[in-house]
Amino acid sequence: MPIYDACLDANIEIIHTRHEAAAVFMAEAYAQLTGDIAVAMVTAGAGAANALGPLFTCSESETPVLFLTGDSPIGQDGRGAFQELDQVPMTAPVTKLSFRPTKSGDFGVDTARAIRVAKSGRPGPVHMALPFDLVDAEVIGEDIPQAAAFARERTVLGASDAKLITQRLAAAKRPVVICGPAMNETRNPGVLEELAESLDAPVVAMESPRGLKDPTLGDFAHALKTADLILNLGKRVDFTLNFGSADVFAAGCKWIVINAEPAERDRAHRNLENRLVACFAANPSDAVGAIIDQAKNEQSHAQWRREVADLITVRSYSEEDTVASGNITPAQLCAAVQRQLDKAQKSVVICDGGEFGQWAMAATQGDQRVVNGISGAIGGGLCYGLGAKQAVPDATVFSLMGDGTVGFHFAEFETAARNKDPYVVVVGNDECWNAEHQIQLRDYGPDRLIGCQLSGARYDEAVIGLGGHGEYVTDLADLDAALDRAVNSGKVACVNVQIEGIPAPSGSAH
Amino acid sequence: MPIYDACLDANIEIIHTRHEAAAVFMAEAYAQLTGDIAVAMVTAGAGAANALGPLFTCSESETPVLFLTGDSPIGQDGRGAFQELDQVPMTAPVTKLSFRPTKSGDFGVDTARAIRVAKSGRPGPVHMALPFDLVDAEVIGEDIPQAAAFARERTVLGASDAKLITQRLAAAKRPVVICGPAMNETRNPGVLEELAESLDAPVVAMESPRGLKDPTLGDFAHALKTADLILNLGKRVDFTLNFGSADVFAAGCKWIVINAEPAERDRAHRNLENRLVACFAANPSDAVGAIIDQAKNEQSHAQWRREVADLITVRSYSEEDTVASGNITPAQLCAAVQRQLDKAQKSVVICDGGEFGQWAMAATQGDQRVVNGISGAIGGGLCYGLGAKQAVPDATVFSLMGDGTVGFHFAEFETAARNKDPYVVVVGNDECWNAEHQIQLRDYGPDRLIGCQLSGARYDEAVIGLGGHGEYVTDLADLDAALDRAVNSGKVACVNVQIEGIPAPSGSAH
Amino acid sequence: MPIYDACLDANIEIIHTRHEAAAVFMAEAYAQLTGDIAVAMVTAGAGAANALGPLFTCSESETPVLFLTGDSPIGQDGRGAFQELDQVPMTAPVTKLSFRPTKSGDFGVDTARAIRVAKSGRPGPVHMALPFDLVDAEVIGEDIPQAAAFARERTVLGASDAKLITQRLAAAKRPVVICGPAMNETRNPGVLEELAESLDAPVVAMESPRGLKDPTLGDFAHALKTADLILNLGKRVDFTLNFGSADVFAAGCKWIVINAEPAERDRAHRNLENRLVACFAANPSDAVGAIIDQAKNEQSHAQWRREVADLITVRSYSEEDTVASGNITPAQLCAAVQRQLDKAQKSVVICDGGEFGQWAMAATQGDQRVVNGISGAIGGGLCYGLGAKQAVPDATVFSLMGDGTVGFHFAEFETAARNKDPYVVVVGNDECWNAEHQIQLRDYGPDRLIGCQLSGARYDEAVIGLGGHGEYVTDLADLDAALDRAVNSGKVACVNVQIEGIPAPSGSAH
Amino acid sequence: MPIYDACLDANIEIIHTRHEAAAVFMAEAYAQLTGDIAVAMVTAGAGAANALGPLFTCSESETPVLFLTGDSPIGQDGRGAFQELDQVPMTAPVTKLSFRPTKSGDFGVDTARAIRVAKSGRPGPVHMALPFDLVDAEVIGEDIPQAAAFARERTVLGASDAKLITQRLAAAKRPVVICGPAMNETRNPGVLEELAESLDAPVVAMESPRGLKDPTLGDFAHALKTADLILNLGKRVDFTLNFGSADVFAAGCKWIVINAEPAERDRAHRNLENRLVACFAANPSDAVGAIIDQAKNEQSHAQWRREVADLITVRSYSEEDTVASGNITPAQLCAAVQRQLDKAQKSVVICDGGEFGQWAMAATQGDQRVVNGISGAIGGGLCYGLGAKQAVPDATVFSLMGDGTVGFHFAEFETAARNKDPYVVVVGNDECWNAEHQIQLRDYGPDRLIGCQLSGARYDEAVIGLGGHGEYVTDLADLDAALDRAVNSGKVACVNVQIEGIPAPSGSAH
Repeated sequence: MPIYDACLDANIEIIHTRHEAAAVFMAEAYAQLTGDIAVAMVTAGAGAANALGPLFTCSESETPVLFLTGDSPIGQDGRGAFQELDQVPMTAPVTKLSFRPTKSGDFGVDTARAIRVAKSGRPGPVHMALPFDLVDAEVIGEDIPQAAAFARERTVLGASDAKLITQRLAAAKRPVVICGPAMNETRNPGVLEELAESLDAPVVAMESPRGLKDPTLGDFAHALKTADLILNLGKRVDFTLNFGSADVFAAGCKWIVINAEPAERDRAHRNLENRLVACFAANPSDAVGAIIDQAKNEQSHAQWRREVADLITVRSYSEEDTVASGNITPAQLCAAVQRQLDKAQKSVVICDGGEFGQWAMAATQGDQRVVNGISGAIGGGLCYGLGAKQAVPDATVFSLMGDGTVGFHFAEFETAARNKDPYVVVVGNDECWNAEHQIQLRDYGPDRLIGCQLSGARYDEAVIGLGGHGEYVTDLADLDAALDRAVNSGKVACVNVQIEGIPAPSGSAH
Repeated sequence: MPIYDACLDANIEIIHTRHEAAAVFMAEAYAQLTGDIAVAMVTAGAGAANALGPLFTCSESETPVLFLTGDSPIGQDGRGAFQELDQVPMTAPVTKLSFRPTKSGDFGVDTARAIRVAKSGRPGPVHMALPFDLVDAEVIGEDIPQAAAFARERTVLGASDAKLITQRLAAAKRPVVICGPAMNETRNPGVLEELAESLDAPVVAMESPRGLKDPTLGDFAHALKTADLILNLGKRVDFTLNFGSADVFAAGCKWIVINAEPAERDRAHRNLENRLVACFAANPSDAVGAIIDQAKNEQSHAQWRREVADLITVRSYSEEDTVASGNITPAQLCAAVQRQLDKAQKSVVICDGGEFGQWAMAATQGDQRVVNGISGAIGGGLCYGLGAKQAVPDATVFSLMGDGTVGFHFAEFETAARNKDPYVVVVGNDECWNAEHQIQLRDYGPDRLIGCQLSGARYDEAVIGLGGHGEYVTDLADLDAALDRAVNSGKVACVNVQIEGIPAPSGSAH
Repeated sequence: MPIYDACLDANIEIIHTRHEAAAVFMAEAYAQLTGDIAVAMVTAGAGAANALGPLFTCSESETPVLFLTGDSPIGQDGRGAFQELDQVPMTAPVTKLSFRPTKSGDFGVDTARAIRVAKSGRPGPVHMALPFDLVDAEVIGEDIPQAAAFARERTVLGASDAKLITQRLAAAKRPVVICGPAMNETRNPGVLEELAESLDAPVVAMESPRGLKDPTLGDFAHALKTADLILNLGKRVDFTLNFGSADVFAAGCKWIVINAEPAERDRAHRNLENRLVACFAANPSDAVGAIIDQAKNEQSHAQWRREVADLITVRSYSEEDTVASGNITPAQLCAAVQRQLDKAQKSVVICDGGEFGQWAMAATQGDQRVVNGISGAIGGGLCYGLGAKQAVPDATVFSLMGDGTVGFHFAEFETAARNKDPYVVVVGNDECWNAEHQIQLRDYGPDRLIGCQLSGARYDEAVIGLGGHGEYVTDLADLDAALDRAVNSGKVACVNVQIEGIPAPSGSAH
Repeated sequence: MPIYDACLDANIEIIHTRHEAAAVFMAEAYAQLTGDIAVAMVTAGAGAANALGPLFTCSESETPVLFLTGDSPIGQDGRGAFQELDQVPMTAPVTKLSFRPTKSGDFGVDTARAIRVAKSGRPGPVHMALPFDLVDAEVIGEDIPQAAAFARERTVLGASDAKLITQRLAAAKRPVVICGPAMNETRNPGVLEELAESLDAPVVAMESPRGLKDPTLGDFAHALKTADLILNLGKRVDFTLNFGSADVFAAGCKWIVINAEPAERDRAHRNLENRLVACFAANPSDAVGAIIDQAKNEQSHAQWRREVADLITVRSYSEEDTVASGNITPAQLCAAVQRQLDKAQKSVVICDGGEFGQWAMAATQGDQRVVNGISGAIGGGLCYGLGAKQAVPDATVFSLMGDGTVGFHFAEFETAARNKDPYVVVVGNDECWNAEHQIQLRDYGPDRLIGCQLSGARYDEAVIGLGGHGEYVTDLADLDAALDRAVNSGKVACVNVQIEGIPAPSGSAH
């Protein structure tokens, strides 16, 4: 409450959500779309605990978020204060840094530290738990630290190291550059393209929980079977890369890893072993410039680049495919959304969900994109829309979600309506937790399905009740018009589309 | 997924919710209403993190819940597995015990331990994180532990200690017995009354985050100003008791504390200092019997018991009170609900929310009750309804929630509708986060209100969209009929009642 | 330093040692011999770190020690204070409780808590890290807690449970009662004997790191192969009991466990599984009384008790045995020491070391005994002597140590000399780390011995240099006289005896 | 034991000490004198705990040591194995990294990680706890990682940043370069001199617990009162720099900090606030080269350099000073030692202790030096001698210790004698814990002295008993001859010199 009150004088707008986690998801999207840090603030106790999920999400998507929570007064520690809870160990596993200031005079340096850490190295969330008595105390004569104290700390790649890297790339026949989520196009517009040109090598950013099966990447995995050198710029060598194992990467393929985090460099050593020929302690975003500086712009890999580019665009499905039930297919739904995105001056597309979220990733493209990332968490898409409207108010924002997914924070439609944030949530509704359903089908068979069915709830009507616009579509012929009306409603809209539940696409492979 | 599949053969029904936290809230209500442990199971990573909030709630409400989560395979530890997350430290602050089994052959003893710990001493939640490779492993020849290994461990009060306590109570002029949440009437039907009769002393269970301002307790706090002996049976000496401080309790008042937890006994020493004349390491539920055994059933405190009973029934408001706006008042709404409860053969009332939740506690009474407890968390009420219908299928269940509160897990209306669980959610709708609003009014004044307004969303219509029954009431004259229809709808129902936002009542004091 | 200074006015004597660990060992012996808590205080930083070893020892020997350390000022936390070190997690694994007070006004309740915890349940060490600024602050008006706040907390065994136990014991044919270190004769004079009489059953306390191979127990392990019921009073079910496994205990043998610690009860469930027929949460020292009260003093196991008593007295060696080298044997050395103990009015015997420490345990007996306990740590024996002289100033104290062992804290001879504490340290000198040597011989063979030889240092002469008395004995004929001179020297004495390095005895088994 | 045995085949020599801590101290000196990492290995349980003190010392002196401990078998975790102890949290506060491998197949990558972490960034100790079952397991087909995996990770300073720094230094009038312990002359011969020449600025390495009162630095602190720019190369901004506070540094003095550790950069921000004008995430040893490369070798600060050099050589005492008692003074003793050092072809001087250790630092100088460093710990000097003889076998090694100090690991004289390592331990014997004594005198007065007196023990005679050479000197006239005899004895020697207890010198200031 003291912070709420202080916001009045500091001219900081508060957008208050219906669930604490929603605020963090909002901040995640805001940070990704602006390339800056975002702030989410929640109350102590269960309020803080409620927000843990999206902190894990931010942690995996490498998104800098400053997470502020109330906390019980230090003066009552151990006495049994209201909502006394040891928050720091609780958030430590899902943040880069979690701490509780102990002196109100330190709030300045503490906040600078929090923001610096969130933005530096592998970006991520930072938690400050603010004891009520410190927040409420009067502080005299403490200066706010200078801007430099809040700035991102660089860790650079030396010029000679950059040169060595470019030489090895030039010498390779089929090099591939793989970047982590923080390096993607939305957050670093144009940078990956410039790098690809300089090195004349394919450059790919990966941010999907399905890793090399990310449907956005088509048959990219095929390229890795013949690649002879991987330059890894900040991409964690984890399950998304099949731990770098030899059944995915060519046995003789060498790796160069650039990562700012000791733990990630160790993971690279551990998973790659002696295939890791060089490993540098540097920040990928700092290293890119040094590499571009040293690259000689040779054009030796043109053919290879074309091959890889072609592989990435492979799709196993077509908008033309139909299903026996006559239901709208995910591909058809995505194509209709894409027509809307293509019409927009500026667009943001949000992809969230299990199977349908993957369809959205494969088959839609906006100017900027936010996906439910490597954490594999679902349910933030509605809140990402809220964040997107604050970050890019003039963009047309589409959030594509499964019907299971949209339920996580359904009441945030009220927030969007109340806050007059117009964007379109498209629900690909197959009345099913389809990701789990597909696993059961695959692993246990059609006779052992349990606990995955959802009802034919009319999410569109529910959204109207919450103050938004609603559309319900069961016939492909009605789809474009419904999407038009949703976009033009001037409200947050839910377009509830009855679809066929089809497994997510993955290149030509499934 | 392997556990889902195993449920098929074990004939365990899965009720799957729309958000992981909802499952834990369900389990909390189920455990309280049955007096047994309940189980909630969620997926790894963000799924586990999503459920932290209600673990804190269970921890504060002293409710035994076994919280099972998926976890990444032990065999991939450190490699970067999907959803690899150090869950144990994350849940440790909000559970009695949190651990990750490391051998599949230990699942039996590990589960026995988890359940034993959850139920013993001060009950509470226990977390087991289940590594995927262990769950999926074949285990041969491991016996399931015998029932005794799962049973609650007793910690008894010695007969001589019980005798000493009853003698001190008999010698006191104005003794009061205060019990913790785990000792309340819903969980221990008849026990407190028996204790009160045996000791001829007032016995009160406390489970509200407002502590001595719990509106259920009326002017009970006045009694404490003259009480000369407190027998504390498992009630944490914390903010809810104003830390036992002398501005609430008579300066010469002595305390006897019985608590099974070393940390709580230490807190009693710390907060009460030398007013703590005796402190016993025993489980309150075990100690009650010993005390009753030793009590001589003297009738020396009859007058004092009547005084205290009268104080508890004091209410500062009346159903007759009206407001200038002509809006329905919280008291009127609660009275109408009470008429429904009175009609029921068997009833459960659930009270959840900030100000309106307090009104519900003060002004309604069912056969059994679940409240948002000492954690101060809100938002579980809808899920408590789900739990109540599983625990007491034949009861009439009412969940009274504020309009801010109902938003936390709104999509669970779909769960209730899908699962055909009929109960009534009454939304006391003042279009406001009224608890925070009242704090701003009080502490900063009417010119500095920020971030507390909600919209006039039609939650009733939204619930219809999600498959339930909806009623919208703005006129007192329509209220009883609407509630009748809701009860008789055979569905989960939302009765959205436009009310005047009035601060919670608190005895005669406000 | 402020605490040193305060000791002047509080009339507290400081015995300052040459190494921080020595102070903790002193306290360990003092606590065991007095049956009360003892206090060791060391400086911050490396001083605290230096004392970790004996905290583990105390933890395993179940000895209540209050370990006080200096700590850097709270006001400088995070700034980089002198000796700033996060002590609490460091000592947590080797203490029952480790904490750093944060308010000087809490020192009273904090100290009460520390002492209460150290003495209650399974006793053990507790660490308080005292920040310099708090220690140096002026505290006004804080009362010292009443004595009850410092007292041991009882956890009792209910009368009906005690009755059940005695009935099961009476019904058993070959019951055995096994007690933990805290229940031994030195700390509870007469209690075990009374229990044995009441139950007419063999009662054994175990406190050796060699567990059932404890040479003090002779062939006791043979008895366990036929025992049909174990009553375990506070003995951890760990490696010392072969985890209760069926190759040591009869397959059908049942167990009843009484233990105050949840973790130990869980361990019993885990290791014993369904052989654990009853498990009680009670303090063994509280339970003993209840059991004695319920026991009917039947005399049904007389024959069995005699059998077990006979097994315990079996020894595989004799003072008469000689070795080819003509060296003094450990048995001869111990017999000579025993002659001295027998002459004393009151005696304390201290046994410390690897193989020779076991010889000392098997072959000497004093009125009171301190051994290097279950931790398996060696090297404290010299310091135990210091503690013994403070605890029982008029006793004849013998400390028997191996030559490797005596080196750990050799300079404490200076402490003893300076402090005028006369006691006799007998060094059984085989110029070898004999425990490790025996393992190498056994596991790798005589060709692969490495790193176990010590020199023929004249420890006796070195002790003279440090201010004590020294004797060097190579011939058995000189031994008694040398010991006489040592006892009568009025100084701390080192009797350095050249012995044959023989493996420790263990019943008749090796 | 399996590791001991493996050493036989790997031709690794084991030098076994009498106390676990001694092994770590040995390793500390070895690492500092060779500039490489050193390994200390100890047993599990209390053995591991015994070694905590010197881990803190290594941590503060920035010394890379690989600390290996035994550990109980993973297969018995939770069962109560012999010496089961949660070692990792225990050592975490005193190491850079502490972990317990969980797969024997990972030993290679785990060891590579441990060594890499110990050597990279701010160097320090790393702990690996080796579970017995993993150590004893057969591992097939696991390759040892390539050398690069064990190498130090560089973190470089960019060329443009280095240029900016040299420009600011050139522009400053009175710049000072301060380096941390890892940058000192012993570990980086010639580097600081080259840096000073390149920048034409005074360069000082600091490694004393007395910080700016380090007597080695004379009146260096005076220079800081007028310095206008500090370039800090890896020196923690802590108590040794008075937290950078304005009562030591000129108010307008600016700081540039280069440090590889985020925590240290944060500390710099916190303590220096806006005086910190630039802060770089780079390794000082990597940064030095970049700075030298960019430096223009201007000669603009010649006068200032001379001034600072003169201040550093100021001493407040003289070998000529005498005391009333006629005792040998510390200055006289050090001068005599210096005469020996000057005679040596190659020399190492070790300074250890409270007051006398400071005398040794001020008044002796060898080719290489090891001091009890910033931890303020004492007692390792004897063991440092052991390490020095392994690292530089042909050097004349002197270890100067106080009489309190020499007691910590006195039995290691036996180790040195047994191992035939000739070096000279000079005991400055004032029969007192003089550091504490001086504090009591200063803060509480001569009437309140307590607990600091030691006896007149004949450490020299004790050393003879332990197999070394001993000299006892009370008369200055005998000193040189005694030192000569000690050096020429061919044995470890103790020269026990009765000295006057005088407070440590500190420039001209005291």
